[in-house]
Amino acid sequence: MHSLTPLFEPRGIIVVGASSSAEKLGAVMAQSLSNYPSPVELVNSRGENGMHTSIAAAATAIPGGPDLAVLCVPAAATAQALRDSAANGAKAALVCAGGFAEAGGPGLELDRDVRAAVQETGIRLLGPNTSGFFVPRLNLRASFVPGVAELEPGSVAVVAASGGVNHVLAFHLQRAGVGVSLAVGIGAGTDITAPDVLDYLISDEQTKAVALHLETVADGPALVDAVARLSAVKPVVALIVGQNDVSEFAQSHTGALATSWRTTRAVLKQAGAVIVDDENQLVAAVTALASRRLAPAPNPGVGLITGQAGPGLLIADALHSAGVTLPRLAQASQDTIGALLPPMTFQANPVDTGRPGPGYDKIVAAVATDPAIDVVAVYGLTEPVADLPASVVASGAAASLPFLIGVDGPDSDVERARKSAELHGLPLITGPTSLAHGIAALVNDARGQFQRAEAAAASFAWPDVQGPWDEDRAKELLGALGIATPARRSCSSRAAAHQALAELGGPVAVKLLDAAVLHKTEIGGVHLGVDSPAALDRALDGLEAAGARDFLIEKMAPSGVDLVAGVRRDPVFGPIVVVGLGGTAAEVYADVSIRSAPLSIREAEGMPAELQARDLLYGFRSGPMLDTAELAAVLVRLGDALGSNDSIAEIEINPLRLTRDGLIALDAVVINVEEDTK
Amino acid sequence: MHSLTPLFEPRGIIVVGASSSAEKLGAVMAQSLSNYPSPVELVNSRGENGMHTSIAAAATAIPGGPDLAVLCVPAAATAQALRDSAANGAKAALVCAGGFAEAGGPGLELDRDVRAAVQETGIRLLGPNTSGFFVPRLNLRASFVPGVAELEPGSVAVVAASGGVNHVLAFHLQRAGVGVSLAVGIGAGTDITAPDVLDYLISDEQTKAVALHLETVADGPALVDAVARLSAVKPVVALIVGQNDVSEFAQSHTGALATSWRTTRAVLKQAGAVIVDDENQLVAAVTALASRRLAPAPNPGVGLITGQAGPGLLIADALHSAGVTLPRLAQASQDTIGALLPPMTFQANPVDTGRPGPGYDKIVAAVATDPAIDVVAVYGLTEPVADLPASVVASGAAASLPFLIGVDGPDSDVERARKSAELHGLPLITGPTSLAHGIAALVNDARGQFQRAEAAAASFAWPDVQGPWDEDRAKELLGALGIATPARRSCSSRAAAHQALAELGGPVAVKLLDAAVLHKTEIGGVHLGVDSPAALDRALDGLEAAGARDFLIEKMAPSGVDLVAGVRRDPVFGPIVVVGLGGTAAEVYADVSIRSAPLSIREAEGMPAELQARDLLYGFRSGPMLDTAELAAVLVRLGDALGSNDSIAEIEINPLRLTRDGLIALDAVVINVEEDTK
Repeated sequence: MHSLTPLFEPRGIIVVGASSSAEKLGAVMAQSLSNYPSPVELVNSRGENGMHTSIAAAATAIPGGPDLAVLCVPAAATAQALRDSAANGAKAALVCAGGFAEAGGPGLELDRDVRAAVQETGIRLLGPNTSGFFVPRLNLRASFVPGVAELEPGSVAVVAASGGVNHVLAFHLQRAGVGVSLAVGIGAGTDITAPDVLDYLISDEQTKAVALHLETVADGPALVDAVARLSAVKPVVALIVGQNDVSEFAQSHTGALATSWRTTRAVLKQAGAVIVDDENQLVAAVTALASRRLAPAPNPGVGLITGQAGPGLLIADALHSAGVTLPRLAQASQDTIGALLPPMTFQANPVDTGRPGPGYDKIVAAVATDPAIDVVAVYGLTEPVADLPASVVASGAAASLPFLIGVDGPDSDVERARKSAELHGLPLITGPTSLAHGIAALVNDARGQFQRAEAAAASFAWPDVQGPWDEDRAKELLGALGIATPARRSCSSRAAAHQALAELGGPVAVKLLDAAVLHKTEIGGVHLGVDSPAALDRALDGLEAAGARDFLIEKMAPSGVDLVAGVRRDPVFGPIVVVGLGGTAAEVYADVSIRSAPLSIREAEGMPAELQARDLLYGFRSGPMLDTAELAAVLVRLGDALGSNDSIAEIEINPLRLTRDGLIALDAVVINVEEDTK
Repeated sequence: MHSLTPLFEPRGIIVVGASSSAEKLGAVMAQSLSNYPSPVELVNSRGENGMHTSIAAAATAIPGGPDLAVLCVPAAATAQALRDSAANGAKAALVCAGGFAEAGGPGLELDRDVRAAVQETGIRLLGPNTSGFFVPRLNLRASFVPGVAELEPGSVAVVAASGGVNHVLAFHLQRAGVGVSLAVGIGAGTDITAPDVLDYLISDEQTKAVALHLETVADGPALVDAVARLSAVKPVVALIVGQNDVSEFAQSHTGALATSWRTTRAVLKQAGAVIVDDENQLVAAVTALASRRLAPAPNPGVGLITGQAGPGLLIADALHSAGVTLPRLAQASQDTIGALLPPMTFQANPVDTGRPGPGYDKIVAAVATDPAIDVVAVYGLTEPVADLPASVVASGAAASLPFLIGVDGPDSDVERARKSAELHGLPLITGPTSLAHGIAALVNDARGQFQRAEAAAASFAWPDVQGPWDEDRAKELLGALGIATPARRSCSSRAAAHQALAELGGPVAVKLLDAAVLHKTEIGGVHLGVDSPAALDRALDGLEAAGARDFLIEKMAPSGVDLVAGVRRDPVFGPIVVVGLGGTAAEVYADVSIRSAPLSIREAEGMPAELQARDLLYGFRSGPMLDTAELAAVLVRLGDALGSNDSIAEIEINPLRLTRDGLIALDAVVINVEEDTK
């Protein structure tokens, strides 16, 4: 039995702090739980309305004891109520009250008390500071929001950081026609956190897709692990709040510092989640995914059949923006379709059918059986003469391929289409843009599964290179990792420098060499394009004036496109690999791709495609062409290196230049953990 | 009377090509129009079901004659039906059929016929290739989409490029509770185009806000003018399709090349429209704007009051992403609120009220009367005990400030809140992100009005500078426009070049000077950092080898941040001014701000703030600070210059360098109209 089964499928419940005053939380919660078919016993210390006056008495009234204690008592009474509940058989508890760590002051002490009670008793605690959870299928609604009584059973589980968002999503999912299987607001997450619930959902058969809402992440590896295991068996869609600096408000709400938004999105995507930007996209995504996933694939092809060209254009535009491919249909498919439609509409994909008429099912079949098509989107205004879900089924193609149907029309017509879709087991969505978001989620889920299908290489041994990490040693490390660097000489004297120039031939870069200096350029520690002994002397004069005793003489690299690549330890997620374009402009655009390390070659190969400026890397204006596999190898090795040496905090190559001869690391910094925390 | 009054408020209608076969377009259209209270007469050439057999007979049956002819005849019969209708008194016609110009081939001839009929008769034609229009308030539904029968009167006008999108938006607006006042699908736009309908809407009292959907723009200045005049009296929200290359499909649909998406968005924003990204944002925007606009302001402050912190965080995050400001409330406001709420919630803005209780209206009043607040967003889950619209009214603040209310809950509760909002005359929206989009629309509308409040300077005389436009002459022009350039000498001999070096002092740039060479750098025509007579001789050798006879010797500029600024003639919108970051990276990010010229200083001052990389211009890493007014002056003058000289196609400054001493134009190109079209 899962440790959360007593919470989500309790054999009996006690409500502690129940009340007979209708406006009080304890009354609302008791009312909300009153429809639960297993025993629910109420505790009120004053014995109002014949309620039990003690937890022990209430527990005794439940054959086999209570599994779940729902606590509607003030913060100060919570720890004791937890201990009493556990002592009387409760294995799980829900605490809605606020006023613990997030409130600061005396709340910090109350938080410690609660944690101690959990620790001592082993009770699983949801909350504090949440509006609860609900499992409509079981008529279990542990929430003080009255509207939850109207929620019907569905197929999507909601795991929300916030109780409020949990409810918002549940209502929206109900409106979308998919409904919730189980919906939880994590709240403070003192004991039960999102990873715990995700773990529970792995074997929850009613849940076909999971909507995950995150504000902060306390334990990054646990979250990544839970998402990876869950997304292996059912789709997970994640909405991460905090693109902007709303940390003051967020902190008051959650009592935790906001986790890096960009990194969280990247590593959860890598773990197999589909990442969305807002709750509307989240609802569209799980609506599409709860029905049927696509097979893992790097770039699934989408067929779009639309009854109206204008909405079709909106859909196609949104799909392109989402990076989804609408392949041109094969000539044979176009011929079949051409025989069924008047000639004036577009038929190569999207297929513009006009008002669906006889033969519509054959058009659907022609698109679905095209070899380039992996999923079909069908859109149309509702019409009495057209039942889109039925036509899709009539095509015979729905058995072999996932479909997503989009309709718009008056409420009653949309409802009729929804019922038909439900009858035929097909997902249905309203609105062109939402249809596109649903399709994008199906495609991104398939891509995520594909990338995860290849495991990272197993063991990696740190090469025999040690600090102190001046540039020469850092580049020696890169060399040992198989990353190209320019020919160089480390020199301890001016004579050696002249010898190096003679050996390497000009022009060379002449640099200060000192592990203690992280930013050479800023103190005049770099001279470029030195091509004569006289120029070298001038450069060495300058370096010595800047305090240099050792010099690095290095062959100048050919021109190209500068990247930045590195690996560092994220405080939440551990080693992460980052690649982006070089230069201040790229930095301002925050145009980077991020992955958790270790990563597989296939995962690393997906990184450059995520850069907005990726065109610059592939022959822009006759520039050099990136060998994606070569860059992937660099990124994988950087990740492996950090993973294999706990004393290293960060390795950064800046710039990593893309030249006609491939990638070459022009400068590199390695930082020890000690230095980093100074 | 407006020329579209006979179309949208006809005293009588004839339906030509009506049918008694229920599935035919002519039957559906006749059915759809049958509820129109003024006379509707049907024409069927075979006299089915006692219909008139001729247009003349039908027209005679209408006292005063028909204003509108709805044609449900094939493309080939359309021109004649138009002539017959006009001859029998019709002043407007709707043509739904396709098969004209967009179909190519024989359709082109049919298109010419129709245009000739319009020209000869002066009849106003909506279509072809549209599913019609509807005015629910008048029970006028000229559409063959059956669901339009269920559309109720509302306050938003829809002007859509596509008949399909017109219907989609109407159904979504009905669901949003605002409904449509009038909704039109333009279709082919052979006669009546979007600007015509926008012009009609200026005096349409039922219309409080306008939703504009565009695919292509035939007449840019007419559209800009219509949007400017309409947005001066009521808000206009525009959704422009075509961010991505979907031109093959779009062309099949509209028969026209896609207009530049970026430019269209920019110039319509400048004209006063609020620009949105998809139809969901469009619906949220007009829902908010149909109730009440904000006063013109450069940066209105938004107050956010939320019953639940989690959704509040979603809203605040989305508002920040949309560039909307949530000012911190004044201490006095916070004190007032602090006395009304328990201490543990955030109260500085957003104001997290928790479950609304007694004193909620006073909290609303405190936020609304804060001096930094210009509009208030109020959000909460629906609860039987809380009527948000009533509480807002109870605060007494709704009279002095615009509000937007957001709720989520079960359908029935949301419906109850919507009715309350309607009763109290307040706009209401569902979903945190949609609430944020609604607020952003209110703010952007106020910003647009503010920028438009200042007219562009009146007259501008082209300075006394003429081509041929080599770099020296181009910079002379810039100088005459008041734009700084480096000190320079134009030299026709090596001796003059040496003299120039002596006068200017090194280092200098030495460039090939030839109006026929547009890209000097690519042919080795630029030598930088020349600081000695010997280096100058080497540079001149190189230039002569590249074919130079004249040279430009120019003082090297200090380092800084390179911009690109220019003005050119857009094929649709005429002179447009563009500014962006320099370099290939910025080009790949397409990070530019665009305006139609002439433009006011205030409009130009808004441009750098639109750049994603704007941080780079304002002291990034101790770099130079842009004087926004200085850049605005450059951009205004560039626009004025092009506007005052029809022979110039383009002026581009690349780079325009931002230095510690201000902006300086390092290279400039002026292109004549003749050269441009070569």
